[in-house]
Amino acid sequence: MVSDAAFVRNLWYMAAWAEEVPENGFLSRTLLGERWLLFRCGDGTWAMLADRCPHRFAALSRGARVGDVVHCGYHGLGFDRTGNCVHNPFGGAPPSARVLTLPVVERHGGLWFWPGDAERANAETIPDFAFVEGPEHVRGYLRMEANYEFIADNLMDLSHAEFIHRESFGTNGSLLERGVHTVQADATGAIWNNWDIADAVPPDWVRPMVPEGARIDQWLHMRWHAPASMALHIGVARAGTRRTAMVVPAMANPHILTPESTASTHYFYTREPGDQAAEMVRRVFEQEDEPMIASVQEGFAGRDFWEARPLILPSDAGAIRARRRLMQLRRAEAPAAAA
Amino acid sequence: MVSDAAFVRNLWYMAAWAEEVPENGFLSRTLLGERWLLFRCGDGTWAMLADRCPHRFAALSRGARVGDVVHCGYHGLGFDRTGNCVHNPFGGAPPSARVLTLPVVERHGGLWFWPGDAERANAETIPDFAFVEGPEHVRGYLRMEANYEFIADNLMDLSHAEFIHRESFGTNGSLLERGVHTVQADATGAIWNNWDIADAVPPDWVRPMVPEGARIDQWLHMRWHAPASMALHIGVARAGTRRTAMVVPAMANPHILTPESTASTHYFYTREPGDQAAEMVRRVFEQEDEPMIASVQEGFAGRDFWEARPLILPSDAGAIRARRRLMQLRRAEAPAAAA
Amino acid sequence: MVSDAAFVRNLWYMAAWAEEVPENGFLSRTLLGERWLLFRCGDGTWAMLADRCPHRFAALSRGARVGDVVHCGYHGLGFDRTGNCVHNPFGGAPPSARVLTLPVVERHGGLWFWPGDAERANAETIPDFAFVEGPEHVRGYLRMEANYEFIADNLMDLSHAEFIHRESFGTNGSLLERGVHTVQADATGAIWNNWDIADAVPPDWVRPMVPEGARIDQWLHMRWHAPASMALHIGVARAGTRRTAMVVPAMANPHILTPESTASTHYFYTREPGDQAAEMVRRVFEQEDEPMIASVQEGFAGRDFWEARPLILPSDAGAIRARRRLMQLRRAEAPAAAA
Repeated sequence: MVSDAAFVRNLWYMAAWAEEVPENGFLSRTLLGERWLLFRCGDGTWAMLADRCPHRFAALSRGARVGDVVHCGYHGLGFDRTGNCVHNPFGGAPPSARVLTLPVVERHGGLWFWPGDAERANAETIPDFAFVEGPEHVRGYLRMEANYEFIADNLMDLSHAEFIHRESFGTNGSLLERGVHTVQADATGAIWNNWDIADAVPPDWVRPMVPEGARIDQWLHMRWHAPASMALHIGVARAGTRRTAMVVPAMANPHILTPESTASTHYFYTREPGDQAAEMVRRVFEQEDEPMIASVQEGFAGRDFWEARPLILPSDAGAIRARRRLMQLRRAEAPAAAA
Repeated sequence: MVSDAAFVRNLWYMAAWAEEVPENGFLSRTLLGERWLLFRCGDGTWAMLADRCPHRFAALSRGARVGDVVHCGYHGLGFDRTGNCVHNPFGGAPPSARVLTLPVVERHGGLWFWPGDAERANAETIPDFAFVEGPEHVRGYLRMEANYEFIADNLMDLSHAEFIHRESFGTNGSLLERGVHTVQADATGAIWNNWDIADAVPPDWVRPMVPEGARIDQWLHMRWHAPASMALHIGVARAGTRRTAMVVPAMANPHILTPESTASTHYFYTREPGDQAAEMVRRVFEQEDEPMIASVQEGFAGRDFWEARPLILPSDAGAIRARRRLMQLRRAEAPAAAA
Repeated sequence: MVSDAAFVRNLWYMAAWAEEVPENGFLSRTLLGERWLLFRCGDGTWAMLADRCPHRFAALSRGARVGDVVHCGYHGLGFDRTGNCVHNPFGGAPPSARVLTLPVVERHGGLWFWPGDAERANAETIPDFAFVEGPEHVRGYLRMEANYEFIADNLMDLSHAEFIHRESFGTNGSLLERGVHTVQADATGAIWNNWDIADAVPPDWVRPMVPEGARIDQWLHMRWHAPASMALHIGVARAGTRRTAMVVPAMANPHILTPESTASTHYFYTREPGDQAAEMVRRVFEQEDEPMIASVQEGFAGRDFWEARPLILPSDAGAIRARRRLMQLRRAEAPAAAA
């Protein structure tokens, strides 16, 4: 067995939606197994500090913020945005007292951090989620008690919609009957897991928008960037128009996963405004997907995915390719093993 | 330390009462540390499959049954009673896709399975519990948070009744004063742990059935088969009649233990019909035995029984003999150790 | 890493306040990771037995006491105060049957036990807490989910009062502004961590007791004996009187910590009578100190204190000296390591 580290470090991960961080306060969140503190500085840029005082390891988030300085609530040490201790109530700030910081930038409402070598952090490589801008998108967050790769498996194999989500937003069997599945990569490093359905009977929600008896082309394209930042692109067009006669405007939704730990995940998504959409999200995520993913995690019982030798199906191609990519990245970061 | 495996595999274990399995559905139960699915096929025989899809390891019991085929609720793979994958909605069923099955047979209302080598499974060696048949026996099931050998210790040393069960169905001190204790084996592989009480004052429940001042002979014989399938035989006769003048017909009760895990146990029993008998069972098992057995398990704190060097008393003879038998069976199945 | 044992054994630890033990009954408490039984014998002296029957390891505290003999509730074995088995209902008491006992003595209402070599137990070395006698002291007990050394750190660095307890009984900034911190040892083996504040504005609770505009001298002296038996001595005098003109009589409070396990602690204290004092104790211990100490324990995440390399501040001097003393005692008891 090649001993992979738990997480790839030289990647951008999403920590939070900017709007989750209280004005003049901070957000404490466990990310990749460690607690971090996020806050917006007076100049509008963001800071990310380890949420642990170097003195007695209390969480700094139990303290208070004064300007851009965070004061520990236990013995009063103060740390600035660069992690330096700038205040000790009982004497000068010792030069060795500092907390870790990480690069963090805001993009399209998300706060992205880089847990690897800071000099390699290039904000140009943050995946493009520009489509989440606009008042028609409500930004949502939930926490799942599952390893992020099991959740990514779920999202990268949408064939599950015909079974788990049959009652909620299933594709009414058309994915099963007419779905064509392809996997491809692009120049941004993305893996696309695409389902294309041609000349199908429209599902219930589309029917009111097309003439009686009309048929449609539909596509569900999931874009994946490492570690598990996904975007689902959905389209519906009148059949035979080469996707020119769109029935509804093309849609895209983020499904961005960031490990809280090896067994729990932060899940960032958007939904339409309104109680009905909120209820649908709750149903799909919490009642349909999450119990099944929990069952998967229980089935693996802590074993390594590859060592447990799961059956690989053709419909898995996208999920497996993403897993392999991640595994390669982890190995590339692992210290060289003895021969 | 000789490294025993957790469980002896080449033995019959009871999985459930047949009546616990829903008609046209299935029962999912963790047995010997693994989840299994049990169902009655259309032809009336029983099937037992690993409750884990080989694709993403989701529990098959989250899916649905169509005839004798179980369909996974995640991506729709279907498995027949032999464990073969006979349906894949997105392509042919891959020949390597199958789930484990175990031999399972019904005997006297119990479903018995064989977790070892299937070719060694001989239903003739299932211990005889024919006495549970008949409407006067209500079949019961409970789950105890304790290793099954600690529960077997309890059942194989009934001297505890004078202390734990003094208020419920104690033998009113006659076991203490006049009990004669013997242990013997029989040709079926059973170990019998017998208490015989001669010429004793009848306990309260017997008194109305004998003349004023009459004395009785009473016996409590516990029969044990590996791993921990027990039957308690109880008799009460007029003293000095060589057990010919029975005060009540001879009785027998099953106490069948099957490990759920190394720290929890399925307990199958019968009781008389009626609320009062149900209440008595609840009291004796849940309020009297279980807390004491939990205390024993806590006292051992995960250590091996023999290494913890418990004090062995003469009254332990049956329990210790059963433990030794099990240990020999485990060692016989263990791979040969290096010299 | 030097492999320290979890606890120093050749020391006096406080097990309970005598008044916690029911008359004619016993108290079962987990101390240093093991369950013990404490009871007052008929002659008024105390007994301390392992709370575990040597037969099947059930807790003896599930049984009953008859005179100075404890009877196991499972199979009736009886043990006297010396730990010898003096009763077996089903035969003679086997000579090898006994339970461990520890030396235990009562001092000033506390029961002190010695978990090390019994012949080294000298009651003269129990730290002096005579000041807890008297009806003006209500003896209290609480259990904290934290390692006792993290709680001792808290008590041995009272500078935290200016931050955690600012709202409850903070020193109103005078510790910060005028506190002089010294650490010293004494002939009893104690480490004293002293804060002395000279010529300060009186805090709110003192103001009614001094003339308008008067200034005070105040001191907070924490006395520590290994393992973590502490006494806080507090004094307030009119400034410039060389502590002769006391504003209130000198006060002292016990803060005696005994490990329940490596991650939880018994905390013995006293308070003034009355609901208001009870409420203050609850607030200070449970709402202010305990969450911060829990955060510290979470921050260390199970790592050894020294290996985690916390930042050492001058205000830590007392806490660090106590930690070093304990580490030396643990190492002195550890078996000699190979060179």
